[in-house]
Amino acid sequence: MGQYTAPLRDMQFVLHELLGVEAELKAMPRHADVDADTINQVIEEAGKFCADVVFPLNQSGDREGCTYEGNGVVRAPKGFREAYRQYIEAGWPALACDPEFGGQGLPIVVNNALYEMLNSASQAWTMYPGLSHGAYEALHAHGTPELKQTYLPKLVSGEWTGTMCLTEPHCGTDLGILRSKAEPQADGSYRITGTKIFISAGEHDLADNIIHLVLARLPDAPQGTKGISLFVVPKFVPDASGNPGERNGIQCGAIEHKMGIHGNATCVMNLDGAQGWLVGEPNKGLNAMFVMMNAARLGVGAQGLGLTEVAYQNSLAYAKDRLQMRSLTGTKAPDKPADPIIVHPDVRRMLLTQKAYAEGGRAFAYWTALQIDRELSHPDESVRKASADLVALLTPVIKAFLTDNAFTSTNEGMQVFGGHGYIAEWGMEQYVRDARINMIYEGTNTIQALDLLGRKILGDMGAKLKAFGKIVQAFVEEEGTNEAMQEFINPLADLGDKVQKLTMEIGMKAMGNADEVGAAAVPYLRVVGHLVFSYFWARMAKIALEKQDSGDKFYTSKLATARFYFAKLQPETAAEIRKARAGASTLMALDADLF
Amino acid sequence: MGQYTAPLRDMQFVLHELLGVEAELKAMPRHADVDADTINQVIEEAGKFCADVVFPLNQSGDREGCTYEGNGVVRAPKGFREAYRQYIEAGWPALACDPEFGGQGLPIVVNNALYEMLNSASQAWTMYPGLSHGAYEALHAHGTPELKQTYLPKLVSGEWTGTMCLTEPHCGTDLGILRSKAEPQADGSYRITGTKIFISAGEHDLADNIIHLVLARLPDAPQGTKGISLFVVPKFVPDASGNPGERNGIQCGAIEHKMGIHGNATCVMNLDGAQGWLVGEPNKGLNAMFVMMNAARLGVGAQGLGLTEVAYQNSLAYAKDRLQMRSLTGTKAPDKPADPIIVHPDVRRMLLTQKAYAEGGRAFAYWTALQIDRELSHPDESVRKASADLVALLTPVIKAFLTDNAFTSTNEGMQVFGGHGYIAEWGMEQYVRDARINMIYEGTNTIQALDLLGRKILGDMGAKLKAFGKIVQAFVEEEGTNEAMQEFINPLADLGDKVQKLTMEIGMKAMGNADEVGAAAVPYLRVVGHLVFSYFWARMAKIALEKQDSGDKFYTSKLATARFYFAKLQPETAAEIRKARAGASTLMALDADLF
Repeated sequence: MGQYTAPLRDMQFVLHELLGVEAELKAMPRHADVDADTINQVIEEAGKFCADVVFPLNQSGDREGCTYEGNGVVRAPKGFREAYRQYIEAGWPALACDPEFGGQGLPIVVNNALYEMLNSASQAWTMYPGLSHGAYEALHAHGTPELKQTYLPKLVSGEWTGTMCLTEPHCGTDLGILRSKAEPQADGSYRITGTKIFISAGEHDLADNIIHLVLARLPDAPQGTKGISLFVVPKFVPDASGNPGERNGIQCGAIEHKMGIHGNATCVMNLDGAQGWLVGEPNKGLNAMFVMMNAARLGVGAQGLGLTEVAYQNSLAYAKDRLQMRSLTGTKAPDKPADPIIVHPDVRRMLLTQKAYAEGGRAFAYWTALQIDRELSHPDESVRKASADLVALLTPVIKAFLTDNAFTSTNEGMQVFGGHGYIAEWGMEQYVRDARINMIYEGTNTIQALDLLGRKILGDMGAKLKAFGKIVQAFVEEEGTNEAMQEFINPLADLGDKVQKLTMEIGMKAMGNADEVGAAAVPYLRVVGHLVFSYFWARMAKIALEKQDSGDKFYTSKLATARFYFAKLQPETAAEIRKARAGASTLMALDADLF
Repeated sequence: MGQYTAPLRDMQFVLHELLGVEAELKAMPRHADVDADTINQVIEEAGKFCADVVFPLNQSGDREGCTYEGNGVVRAPKGFREAYRQYIEAGWPALACDPEFGGQGLPIVVNNALYEMLNSASQAWTMYPGLSHGAYEALHAHGTPELKQTYLPKLVSGEWTGTMCLTEPHCGTDLGILRSKAEPQADGSYRITGTKIFISAGEHDLADNIIHLVLARLPDAPQGTKGISLFVVPKFVPDASGNPGERNGIQCGAIEHKMGIHGNATCVMNLDGAQGWLVGEPNKGLNAMFVMMNAARLGVGAQGLGLTEVAYQNSLAYAKDRLQMRSLTGTKAPDKPADPIIVHPDVRRMLLTQKAYAEGGRAFAYWTALQIDRELSHPDESVRKASADLVALLTPVIKAFLTDNAFTSTNEGMQVFGGHGYIAEWGMEQYVRDARINMIYEGTNTIQALDLLGRKILGDMGAKLKAFGKIVQAFVEEEGTNEAMQEFINPLADLGDKVQKLTMEIGMKAMGNADEVGAAAVPYLRVVGHLVFSYFWARMAKIALEKQDSGDKFYTSKLATARFYFAKLQPETAAEIRKARAGASTLMALDADLF
């Protein structure tokens, strides 16, 4: 039940009309001949694959879940394996990978569009290839040439999948206290022992081998986060010809029963002298892992975006179909026993909330992906550096803001269905349950907020934020005399000023009391998220204003959604700024035993 | 897994120190000898029952769910039947019922405290007796003496349970289009035919008989809501001696698979010429049903309150126990590998959000219950009328505000657990899933908001709101010169002014365009909810200020929570007022086919 169609028109609007990707890519030798037609063909094909092959598995996968068959064996839900086979046969895992290892070398921004659609179709299924791609990126960035040659071609082809093994029973956020141990061996490899939990896609029947990236401590490692090393630990150790060989000492001990993403196996992984190879330098595993984590955080943002879009599509269809009550301003469908519920203002609020969050999130996510392409592929070092800073700044915002919005959106989508939203059959409650994990994993949204405010902003005296502020300011000045744009430019400029003041205020307070950062971070991230959204909604409104008389009603819709965003969603900042300013004292006053 | 202890100290604080129930009840002849000791004994006993008998079934009941065994037979989860037997043996169903029919005649406010605890222990289980009590109230208010004699003693004893059968596949909110038909019979009874869906506790194995209150149309009924009648339709028609006799033509056809409340059977009920008896007047069934619906809405508020409390207790215990990272202001537990997470400001924000919503909700819910006692039992008619108006005004606020808050709170509670919150074993995700239905059933929270703004406020030109405003104003003036209270009184008075202005503004706009009510209603209800909470938090702060030097740290905690409420939760109104003022235009601008 339910429906999904790739939102190609809006994706193309973002890619071409908003971001002008073709021209951007022209400036990058590696991508200079990736033109708009190519991109459109790719996303069209990807959209069909997602809708036809992956989407039909989403609900059945949730209902069936994964099965732990004992002795380390896990079976994914029915159909997952076959769909994955089709996925690799079509070459999708290779899309944005390095041609040296069999990749197609397309830009990250195209891969991001693919992942939005995959996640709309089924987040649980998509986590299998998604984690593989993260493992690919970490090995690609930090592996020795030998490790790369051994593992990357198989990850690129999708024959093998990957995981990241960080969490242990006593530590998730606090990796500094992790206990898994790695003993060096005479042959240069290591024997790793420990227990990892919450390992997504840790074991399954989709691929011939599973490549685990595992954090562990060397015997002489210093305490804390500076004593953690990263290892590649294959389920089957590749033999001389590169095929899966001996079974390694890493085994799934159990799978978790969870609120959602039932189709993805969340595994307890027991390592008992498992053979592994060092990735990157000893004791610098967290640095190497952060490549994967940052990719994963952007990936989680894409999960949020995908769920927002699919929940919107389904609640919209329902709102046009379901007849209930008459419009308060008079009957709209006199031939029917009641009006379709889309006539009701609050139903529209719920639909437009989802629409504005989906389209704003798409603009933000694709723009950020394009910044990554610039960071990786632009010939000008200063451009690479500027883009890298923007990506660093906005990665926690993508992760937290888009997933908070997705939880709101999927809940609104479910609410549109009334009682039917609560019934599994309709599929809406699954989106809520799936969306919920995105606020937790790959660093909780609190951790993202601390990363944004503490490390990315206060950590460099606001330099990265200023760089983004300049982009906003340039647009504000450009449109300063454009009368038609004032309704969008004024709240954007106003919020920009407020963010600047708020940041300085928190920075001052934080110098006296570090808890002020922790107290302000979560509402602060919401405010920054809205600054980003205000910027993109203003830019999208400008295009829509220019083209609204073109006869294409797409622009009418875009403009109305921009107006809705500024009228009904952006005002959240009024509350969040007050909360951020309210400081730490009311949080910290109470002794723990008086709670 | 998990824990629950009845929050007796805070319940007693609300009942005795905040509300002074003993003195209030003294003024009501029916309750004049219900003293504080009696109340305390009752809630203490109830607390034990909830914690020891009901709570242990909550998680297993969720996991097992209800079973449809075919042929109309439904089995509740293991242990539910036995716990229900203990419940009726202890006489709990009779607590607040009319002594004429075997009730104990205690006030509603005590019953409300009981239901808070039952819902903390297990919402799904509690819905069985909860719906019975609603059926009791509807029959008690509108049944003929004969119907009362037949059904009330069994509902009061709990031997029989009850349901409300409103929704049909094509109508939930819009009861005006319901289709079930009632044919009058020569013996004065009716034969009812139709399909009802989403019938909570519609069929189960807890009781010997199930008494359905069913909405249907008489053959000559006018169209719309003015042609609906209410009928009592027993599963087994009572025989001459009042025992379950002939099996009636109402049968469960299926149960739903839902997001949560798995332990409660949500039934499709097929009526095929089922024998029923008219309750209240022909075609005025909705009026009669509203007695039950209003009780149910307050009951749903109690569900929200119960879940908020239990989620708080569990996340608090986890936050004190879980070690992760060091405090930003320096190590707090040097003997441990990391600090307990309660040292972190944002964890405290999540805990205090739950605490402030639980304690504020308790004050609001018990106060409203006491108003119902005044409405039902006060000798002075003007007092009865004034209380009835307050109850009418605030019923939608109790329902929507407390359940929105509960969804926020259970989500915060889950978030405190990080990844473990998403795992079923810990029990936190169940609270989120259970809490979600409360925003939907018994009238979605949008319907509550429309009821508040459209019917209860604009419908009487703001008279009921003014009456509540006077209560607030009196307190503001009383404390106007109390320096220590200014930090609470100022934001309360300020919000009171804003609500007044906002109400007038919306009222003016609504005269020109009815959609303005629909556009403003949801944010408006949030604002009114915060006005109510601000009032109660200010009153609680006053007591805590007076007693803070008593040596009882309870008041220190209360005062800190009040300060947190005003600093971090009440600022939500800044956003909601802006959203409410933003009007209908951005919602209604877009043609339905351009979404």
